[in-house]
Amino acid sequence: MGGSLARAVKEAGLPWHVRGLARDPATRRAALAAGAVDEACATAAEAARGADLVVIALPVRVIPDAARDLAPHLAPGTVVTDVGSTKAVLTRRVEDLLPPGVHFVGGHPIAGTEESGFAASFAGLYRGARCLLTPGASATPEAVASVRDLWESVGMRVEVMDAATHDRILAVISHLPHVVAYALVNAAARADASLPGLLSYTGGGFRDFTRIAASHPAMWRDICLDNRDEVLRALDEFLAEAGRLRSLIAAGDGAGLEEAFAAARVVRRSLAPAPPRAEDRP
Amino acid sequence: MGGSLARAVKEAGLPWHVRGLARDPATRRAALAAGAVDEACATAAEAARGADLVVIALPVRVIPDAARDLAPHLAPGTVVTDVGSTKAVLTRRVEDLLPPGVHFVGGHPIAGTEESGFAASFAGLYRGARCLLTPGASATPEAVASVRDLWESVGMRVEVMDAATHDRILAVISHLPHVVAYALVNAAARADASLPGLLSYTGGGFRDFTRIAASHPAMWRDICLDNRDEVLRALDEFLAEAGRLRSLIAAGDGAGLEEAFAAARVVRRSLAPAPPRAEDRP
Repeated sequence: MGGSLARAVKEAGLPWHVRGLARDPATRRAALAAGAVDEACATAAEAARGADLVVIALPVRVIPDAARDLAPHLAPGTVVTDVGSTKAVLTRRVEDLLPPGVHFVGGHPIAGTEESGFAASFAGLYRGARCLLTPGASATPEAVASVRDLWESVGMRVEVMDAATHDRILAVISHLPHVVAYALVNAAARADASLPGLLSYTGGGFRDFTRIAASHPAMWRDICLDNRDEVLRALDEFLAEAGRLRSLIAAGDGAGLEEAFAAARVVRRSLAPAPPRAEDRP
Repeated sequence: MGGSLARAVKEAGLPWHVRGLARDPATRRAALAAGAVDEACATAAEAARGADLVVIALPVRVIPDAARDLAPHLAPGTVVTDVGSTKAVLTRRVEDLLPPGVHFVGGHPIAGTEESGFAASFAGLYRGARCLLTPGASATPEAVASVRDLWESVGMRVEVMDAATHDRILAVISHLPHVVAYALVNAAARADASLPGLLSYTGGGFRDFTRIAASHPAMWRDICLDNRDEVLRALDEFLAEAGRLRSLIAAGDGAGLEEAFAAARVVRRSLAPAPPRAEDRP
């Protein structure tokens, strides 16, 4: 995420001095060689010193660790943002770690691929995709404007909302489907154990449907636990509907079943087509 | 399904006399004009008279109706097959309708698109995809061989299994995912009703995941009811696993959750990549 952002900033010709922070010397060399950064830093102190805007481009679980590392080196007035897939709990945790006078604006650029690391980064990742901003209690209108400017400069459609709304939306449209896909693949694997070879019959439908079950287990564990309340709520809503369909099938209620399927089809067809490959991230 | 089969038979240069049965005169004209059939018939009597092999290329629900229409016109020794997505209950129902001496071999070419009708047909539909045959009680080895020959001639990989095994496999890898996708879309729609605009945030992940919820409601109603026992069994296995994941999330059991997600990822990654676009049908 960070590598693609740095590349995009440079490709857009923005007159900003970009520092990248990476523990791995090979990553620092690669980022410098690609012209993605002006400086490649090995420590939070180097990266944070004098920065106007700090982007914590890490998965949910390690964002607070990064905030803790950066905190002693951030001057009052600095704006901090992140790219985490959950926002409410995370924002409170990060703000507790940042020094007074530093402004935190939660960010969630809804873009990405199943790959990670600088080698997988590319300047076009964010173009045309959506970015949700959830200003923390410490955010000023100016801080929000500067984070908005950042993402708009690399082609994103930026929207500001409260963190609770963000977490509700993402639980339903992203976190829930992941949990469901993981459950479906595990159930199918168990069926395959009782009827060996069963999984070899899966076609494109099953594969499309379960592609997200190949997502990173630790990252999704963290998302589910960080956004626990909303994930449970969405899961319960889904389980209630699945249970209702189960009852219709068990009762042989063809009219009820057709009505339920037809309603879903209308909704599914009303969704705008996905932009090409840019929105696969949580 | 029938139009694509007829086109494929002709394109393969097979020396068979092909009759197509269609109620709609426009379809008959189109099939003749495309060179897909040698004769375009308007009635079961015309189509069945003297046929060696009859393919009922219709959705599950109307296959028995077609068998009933054809029955009086089928001579002993005729082989009948179908393309239905369920097999055990359907095979018994069809065999009850066919006259003695007619051999029924259940068929399920696992190919297709979300489109239907002759206008959507194309000769390459079946090439490289799998076809499962489930011989009925009335099937002879010769009857099975002739149906196998048909599908292999248009490029399918044919496999013979019993109808119960077919129905178990398809319930898990196809029917269950459809029910789950319908449930997920309905649950998301209900969430959208309480938080208007929620669905507008769906990205490629949600859209890929729910694409099959745009499938034909009546067709999937029929499949779920026809294969009810196996669909309920697969659904219960899935609901048990989804419930287990729910408990892990509720308990904040990060280790258990990561293990469950990682297991699914290993299974999902072990699936062979889907062939290009040919296997999207139930």
